[in-house]
Amino acid sequence: MKRVFFVLLAVTALTVGAQAKVVTDSVTVNMLGVPQKYNVYLPKGYDAGEHYPVIYLLHGLWGCYEDWVNTGQMDRVADQLIASGECVPVVIIMPNAGTRDVHHYQCGYFNVDGWPFEDYFFKEFLPLVEKKYNCGGAKGLRAVMGLSMGGGGTVVYAQRHPDMFSSAYGMSAWLDMKDHATREYPTPDSKLALTDRSVAEHSAPDFVANADKATVEALKSVKWFLDCGDDDFLLTQTMSLYRQMQLAGIKAELRVRDGAHTWEYWHTALHTALPFASRNFDQ
Amino acid sequence: MKRVFFVLLAVTALTVGAQAKVVTDSVTVNMLGVPQKYNVYLPKGYDAGEHYPVIYLLHGLWGCYEDWVNTGQMDRVADQLIASGECVPVVIIMPNAGTRDVHHYQCGYFNVDGWPFEDYFFKEFLPLVEKKYNCGGAKGLRAVMGLSMGGGGTVVYAQRHPDMFSSAYGMSAWLDMKDHATREYPTPDSKLALTDRSVAEHSAPDFVANADKATVEALKSVKWFLDCGDDDFLLTQTMSLYRQMQLAGIKAELRVRDGAHTWEYWHTALHTALPFASRNFDQ
Amino acid sequence: MKRVFFVLLAVTALTVGAQAKVVTDSVTVNMLGVPQKYNVYLPKGYDAGEHYPVIYLLHGLWGCYEDWVNTGQMDRVADQLIASGECVPVVIIMPNAGTRDVHHYQCGYFNVDGWPFEDYFFKEFLPLVEKKYNCGGAKGLRAVMGLSMGGGGTVVYAQRHPDMFSSAYGMSAWLDMKDHATREYPTPDSKLALTDRSVAEHSAPDFVANADKATVEALKSVKWFLDCGDDDFLLTQTMSLYRQMQLAGIKAELRVRDGAHTWEYWHTALHTALPFASRNFDQ
Amino acid sequence: MKRVFFVLLAVTALTVGAQAKVVTDSVTVNMLGVPQKYNVYLPKGYDAGEHYPVIYLLHGLWGCYEDWVNTGQMDRVADQLIASGECVPVVIIMPNAGTRDVHHYQCGYFNVDGWPFEDYFFKEFLPLVEKKYNCGGAKGLRAVMGLSMGGGGTVVYAQRHPDMFSSAYGMSAWLDMKDHATREYPTPDSKLALTDRSVAEHSAPDFVANADKATVEALKSVKWFLDCGDDDFLLTQTMSLYRQMQLAGIKAELRVRDGAHTWEYWHTALHTALPFASRNFDQ
Repeated sequence: MKRVFFVLLAVTALTVGAQAKVVTDSVTVNMLGVPQKYNVYLPKGYDAGEHYPVIYLLHGLWGCYEDWVNTGQMDRVADQLIASGECVPVVIIMPNAGTRDVHHYQCGYFNVDGWPFEDYFFKEFLPLVEKKYNCGGAKGLRAVMGLSMGGGGTVVYAQRHPDMFSSAYGMSAWLDMKDHATREYPTPDSKLALTDRSVAEHSAPDFVANADKATVEALKSVKWFLDCGDDDFLLTQTMSLYRQMQLAGIKAELRVRDGAHTWEYWHTALHTALPFASRNFDQ
Repeated sequence: MKRVFFVLLAVTALTVGAQAKVVTDSVTVNMLGVPQKYNVYLPKGYDAGEHYPVIYLLHGLWGCYEDWVNTGQMDRVADQLIASGECVPVVIIMPNAGTRDVHHYQCGYFNVDGWPFEDYFFKEFLPLVEKKYNCGGAKGLRAVMGLSMGGGGTVVYAQRHPDMFSSAYGMSAWLDMKDHATREYPTPDSKLALTDRSVAEHSAPDFVANADKATVEALKSVKWFLDCGDDDFLLTQTMSLYRQMQLAGIKAELRVRDGAHTWEYWHTALHTALPFASRNFDQ
Repeated sequence: MKRVFFVLLAVTALTVGAQAKVVTDSVTVNMLGVPQKYNVYLPKGYDAGEHYPVIYLLHGLWGCYEDWVNTGQMDRVADQLIASGECVPVVIIMPNAGTRDVHHYQCGYFNVDGWPFEDYFFKEFLPLVEKKYNCGGAKGLRAVMGLSMGGGGTVVYAQRHPDMFSSAYGMSAWLDMKDHATREYPTPDSKLALTDRSVAEHSAPDFVANADKATVEALKSVKWFLDCGDDDFLLTQTMSLYRQMQLAGIKAELRVRDGAHTWEYWHTALHTALPFASRNFDQ
Repeated sequence: MKRVFFVLLAVTALTVGAQAKVVTDSVTVNMLGVPQKYNVYLPKGYDAGEHYPVIYLLHGLWGCYEDWVNTGQMDRVADQLIASGECVPVVIIMPNAGTRDVHHYQCGYFNVDGWPFEDYFFKEFLPLVEKKYNCGGAKGLRAVMGLSMGGGGTVVYAQRHPDMFSSAYGMSAWLDMKDHATREYPTPDSKLALTDRSVAEHSAPDFVANADKATVEALKSVKWFLDCGDDDFLLTQTMSLYRQMQLAGIKAELRVRDGAHTWEYWHTALHTALPFASRNFDQ
């Protein structure tokens, strides 16, 4: 029996791709003023001496850098798609846009008072992780994707930095606050109020509607993908953005699959998102 | 803002189907001699006054009754497929065939010395849970499915009790020990050795190969589905069983999808398995 | 070799389901004033002594009753899904809403001057074919689906006759003329002008927006499915209808898949549409 | 109305990719002794001044070079996948391995007396079409795929010429004659008998089983994909080949989907096959 179970375990180890791993790292000193943890997926056979493309994978409101692994099982999907060749070996970075601790509950992906996250992301975080994990380094080797608030972050980052990403894949994206025009903030300077307001100030449909010709051309240099469930309360936002992009002549893929604002939706979205990012990398 | 987040939360609650739930229950006194825990998935809107079909969902070697929820996220898939109508509202029972405690590590789904699990399952457990949760009660309202050792349990239970199940869906099924003919057991009476031997004694391909005419007819009354990844070390067993069934004229669905002996495979298998069970229930 | 090729052919015949067939029939005398041809798909093993559920499958503008077989290969998909059990054996009727001959080029699915098609469909055609092919006969055994102009026909028929259909599946549906407000008709009474105007007069989004409470309740008794490609020029119409249905509290499935206004889209839609109709039949 | 229908037609033309086209060409003088027709799919925007990768797409027994377009609708699938970026723009060549005329009914893809097809394919046909349509030219820009007898041709060509193809995708492949050991040929030198015998002489599973170390290494330089329906009478041949490849340590993708030896199976296989070929081209 020894042999039998040895075989069972050995084969499992080989086929599951045991060498892929998720490591937790942090940026201790940074312009946000508090240490920022993040997760890194390193593909099977990762070799620090080789250079890899990179994907930034963004979490949603009320979430943190751990969600995509702990709840979204992103590593299982990546392992399988890399094994079958549908996705190239890639480093996947999962940043943090609001930890669960009391001091920095939620401020999201944009610059707000006391939380200059977009600056932090592009000026400190991105250069640091790409150097440390030997990945990215150019638009053609960098993609961004995320869910809900992170889907909004995905779209807005690629809108405002089209020279930085070869592709952007927004899942169930939170893209503006237009459905919620008359708001009263019980605590107007709470972190949630700041987050909320920052999304209103970064309306992705408006960005396209107001884009000048040069901006439209720049947006065309990114491959766009919008994916939102038919039972998702944010679907109208995705449709609104898609419509604006069509009117502006900016090509985007759109999918409405069965589902709501759930992890099952985002988990299965990875099966489409990772190959999409992969085939739009320079090779 | 209050209103905004109220809306976000309320809509999420409505669409995710918050009322579906998983409860942990147990059979305290039973013929196995130790209390047996199990999980029960109750669909959204479950009403103890109504009668439901039932699915038995079996875990694998080294596993327990908690796996399908904790690691396999079966509730997310069931929620979504019931919401879209691809699966009828159904009670899903996840039994235990070897707890992780020291006394009963692993003995699997069959009768072995000191572990009469098949007797327990059919004579004590099944009648008890179907009464308690007002489900099943007839072949036409009962299905079985499972992974690896539980895929073998699935197939063998439906082979030996074809009058009990309308359908059987085996994932990455462990169906015999033919690939491991010369075994030496360091501890011949260890629980693992007993499990191993019980699988050898319940070869599913042999069962079909040796079936008499009446048995073949009985097997045809069950809807069969075999699903195993192309990188799974147990694929040849699934193919061997399928071949025997073809030769005997017993119809079965077969799928080989991308993947190995992994939770990603079994999680996605549920998207096919639950609708399959559902459409083969009497309605 | 004789034996070899005999085997090849025999097995192919068995598995492909050679007995399924498409027959062309016609309604010679009718209120449209000209004979109307139609196609009928009869499933493998069709027995005129048994009663079947029925699906009405509608063609698009510029098309005719032959399209779904000749160009859409609907029989291949039906054969496969019935063989695997994903669709119950069903009779599929493909009517004609505008032949290619000079006299009746195109007038579509609604009543217009000299072309009372809706009356013909419900009062003459449907009772006649359901009697002749022993199918349908009740809401629970009847579904409707179609593409483009026939997708519009599908939705509007089920809106105006919700007691007649258990489900309605609109593909790339042409649902109103709102995007084309200022039109000039070179020949205001041409058949195309009539068709165009009849669609404007049967706006499906408006129907829902203006529905009273009783009508909304009636609409809820139908299972709805809208399916339109991300590159389809009619996508905004599908989204508009879906939005109105959400606001009215009428549940519908929505899918936006990859593709445009093409036969590849409609062919693959059948893989979803037939199981959807099937599982919403009374059984 | 003019405007409306202009819009309908114009948008359709744009999105369907009207510029893609299939041309029929021929090799008049060749070593087979009779002119050989073939079809060529040229992607939307094809520019003879640019160089493209190439796919050879092979038909089955009783078929000819027209089948993949006329019956398989390969152009619809290619149009869609190229539009969405899942397949790069590619030239697809559909050769002829046995026309329907009386003189050359069927002799298949291998060299037999009076029909040196393999020689013709590699020495005359391939260099000629790659020059004429400015495509291929190297292993990294060349793939092969096909159905049934053409699935066997696919596998055997890539086995015997692993330096020529980056990938090989066999659908429902006819791989040997082992299931048909005792054959009697009424006309031993008929074209069908010759075809039959040539398949027996090119057993793909045997080729792998007998491969020496250098051959195995060469085979590993090709990306392999085997795809066969669960109700296909040739499934055991695909499984046999896959098993031999596993034992030899040659990686291959395997899929068993729902279906039989039918065009619906091969049509849907293209949705997987074209992206597979595409991502294995050098870029």
